[in-house]
Amino acid sequence: MPAAVSSPLLFTPSSAPQILKPRSLLPFQTLNLRRPATVSSSRQLAFPGSIRAAVAIEKETPENERPETFLRAADGTDVAAPTSVRGRFERMIREAQDEVCAAIEAVDGGGKFKEDVWSRPGGGGGISRVLQDGGVWEKAGVNVSVVYGLMPPEAYRAAKGEPGDGGGDSSVKAGPVPFFAAGISSVLHPKNPFAPTLHFNYRYFETDAPKDAPGAPRQWWFGGGTDLTPAYIFEEDVKHFHMIQKQSCDKFDPSFYPRFKKWCDDYFFIKHRGERRGLGGIFFDDLNDCDQEMLLAFSTECAKSVVPAYIPIIERRKDMPFTERHKAWQQLRRGRYVEFNLVYDRGTTFGLKTGGRIESILVSLPLTARWEYDHQPEEGSEEWKLLDACINPKEWI
Amino acid sequence: MPAAVSSPLLFTPSSAPQILKPRSLLPFQTLNLRRPATVSSSRQLAFPGSIRAAVAIEKETPENERPETFLRAADGTDVAAPTSVRGRFERMIREAQDEVCAAIEAVDGGGKFKEDVWSRPGGGGGISRVLQDGGVWEKAGVNVSVVYGLMPPEAYRAAKGEPGDGGGDSSVKAGPVPFFAAGISSVLHPKNPFAPTLHFNYRYFETDAPKDAPGAPRQWWFGGGTDLTPAYIFEEDVKHFHMIQKQSCDKFDPSFYPRFKKWCDDYFFIKHRGERRGLGGIFFDDLNDCDQEMLLAFSTECAKSVVPAYIPIIERRKDMPFTERHKAWQQLRRGRYVEFNLVYDRGTTFGLKTGGRIESILVSLPLTARWEYDHQPEEGSEEWKLLDACINPKEWI
Repeated sequence: MPAAVSSPLLFTPSSAPQILKPRSLLPFQTLNLRRPATVSSSRQLAFPGSIRAAVAIEKETPENERPETFLRAADGTDVAAPTSVRGRFERMIREAQDEVCAAIEAVDGGGKFKEDVWSRPGGGGGISRVLQDGGVWEKAGVNVSVVYGLMPPEAYRAAKGEPGDGGGDSSVKAGPVPFFAAGISSVLHPKNPFAPTLHFNYRYFETDAPKDAPGAPRQWWFGGGTDLTPAYIFEEDVKHFHMIQKQSCDKFDPSFYPRFKKWCDDYFFIKHRGERRGLGGIFFDDLNDCDQEMLLAFSTECAKSVVPAYIPIIERRKDMPFTERHKAWQQLRRGRYVEFNLVYDRGTTFGLKTGGRIESILVSLPLTARWEYDHQPEEGSEEWKLLDACINPKEWI
Repeated sequence: MPAAVSSPLLFTPSSAPQILKPRSLLPFQTLNLRRPATVSSSRQLAFPGSIRAAVAIEKETPENERPETFLRAADGTDVAAPTSVRGRFERMIREAQDEVCAAIEAVDGGGKFKEDVWSRPGGGGGISRVLQDGGVWEKAGVNVSVVYGLMPPEAYRAAKGEPGDGGGDSSVKAGPVPFFAAGISSVLHPKNPFAPTLHFNYRYFETDAPKDAPGAPRQWWFGGGTDLTPAYIFEEDVKHFHMIQKQSCDKFDPSFYPRFKKWCDDYFFIKHRGERRGLGGIFFDDLNDCDQEMLLAFSTECAKSVVPAYIPIIERRKDMPFTERHKAWQQLRRGRYVEFNLVYDRGTTFGLKTGGRIESILVSLPLTARWEYDHQPEEGSEEWKLLDACINPKEWI
């Protein structure tokens, strides 16, 4: 018996703690639909803004084995060589998950990913992989998920850019609109304070035709990005990282890199600090103003560029000697990471509110973090230079 | 030069990082008033819900000395023996700050509080005291603040319980309503995993008469509470803590303890985990349904009970031997503390959004915290018992 309980408790817990959340299905609160949606989100799925307020969750069920696909039978008869964008996107993110996890394990030396597979009765599911306390990484999470759900028609209209309730189009007063969402999301926190944290996330969202308007077109969006969060700046690392992002972008559109680089700087902004979480990369959301095939290929290219963008940096930094000062600064920056993710990140805050799989959502948080009162790095120090670059984003290439 | 920067940066920061927030005054966003309010909030000030969306901040100015009072001259001519509730409440919280800080330093042995004093041009100010990395406490913050501000008339009406825009009372279409708010707020995180974290917060809120209706009565509210967050349960500690809260309550109204104990359990709820932050205590908000003098005396009694409720527990636990396992569990519970404060706490989330003094707001965060993927304490273990009590609140006395 640990010293902690020298005086035994008077109450006796009559049953195991209900560690599972007490709720299992949350109703649509905003729209008074007749039944809860069979839908959830987790960190990797960022829905367009108007949809976010109105979806709710169904409890996930653990699975013993990875299914070949999480697609419903109607979507997934061509498992071996999918032809639908849904199927091809799922195939892509699952291959990316395998590729990134293999690269991480190879470099880490000691750690192995622990895998959790889960499904939802209404369709969809996910694979969470976490490597904790490895040789190189403190915490590395790589998750994929596939979600089937229903979105309220109002949200569907808003997402399409159509007028809201005021509009006169009664043909879309129909029922809720089924949607499909799939994504990969990853946060990799190394131990060495000179080795940067990486986050990437690619996702695809698609609606069915509205039930009462079968001829209406499907809507779809792509979103995602890859960004780097070091505690110390090595210019060669940051340049290399941004160069790989630019090369991936330039294969598709010369406007992509400058546009998505700025979007990234704007998105990962810790408003109450007036500073960014890290040194950026690329970020895009709700993208549907290009050819669908092109955006699928672009997302695939971005996901494939994660390993060449990140692993060479880790190889250079993972064994560098460091002091307690360096570690303490890394821990303070991890605190900022927590602040961004819990206060601002759309996927995280949405996931917490709607009851997504909590452990998958919060795997993005670092293993350890630190908050010192009123810490101010000395002007001109290496810590100060990192902070300066977070406050005043640079052009790295 | 640290090893981190073996390759020098190409860019040269042309000026010091703008560590101060780039904004200085945020406009009223929701109500389109003609000028920004000279008002802010920090953690210790929880405004009634309808007010919260509509106030904004003025940048604080550091001061070299504590003024005798933060009250405006019109409120504070009787500094030595204040007669107004504003003056008496400020006096009370400043005495409580001195008393708690002295008790903490005496027990800590080594640590000393660092003090920051600040004011705002429009009136009011605050004193932040932080003891970091002491002998007993990892991080202990005790803040007082006084705020003068303007609230929109709609918020004033809503706070009074009057009908909103739909009402026909045109006499209150007047200008914004000046208000006064003062509070003490404290979070004390000890090092030893068997020594619990304590939070307390007492605050007073008062409006002036609306400018264009000078005869209208002032409105006022009290709020606050004291709650205990251990990582391990020692029943004698929790009983002692709750008994002191009950004794303070019972001096005023036998209904207070059961009512405020439940309110505390309901408020400190981490919804996405289905568990409370800790083992509760008392909490009340927007209280104005009793005699004003009685509630002032009650708040005073509660603030005075902090030392006898908490210090004897610390004396018993501060030197107990512990293992790495105990420390890791404490750090995981600290992670939950961060989750509650950043995601749910009204004062924190409001302060972050409106631009209160960030370092004062976030002093509530622990020095260090930890997030492990899918950590589940072994059934029947001491960690499991704590978790059970956070999931299923107990009656301790």
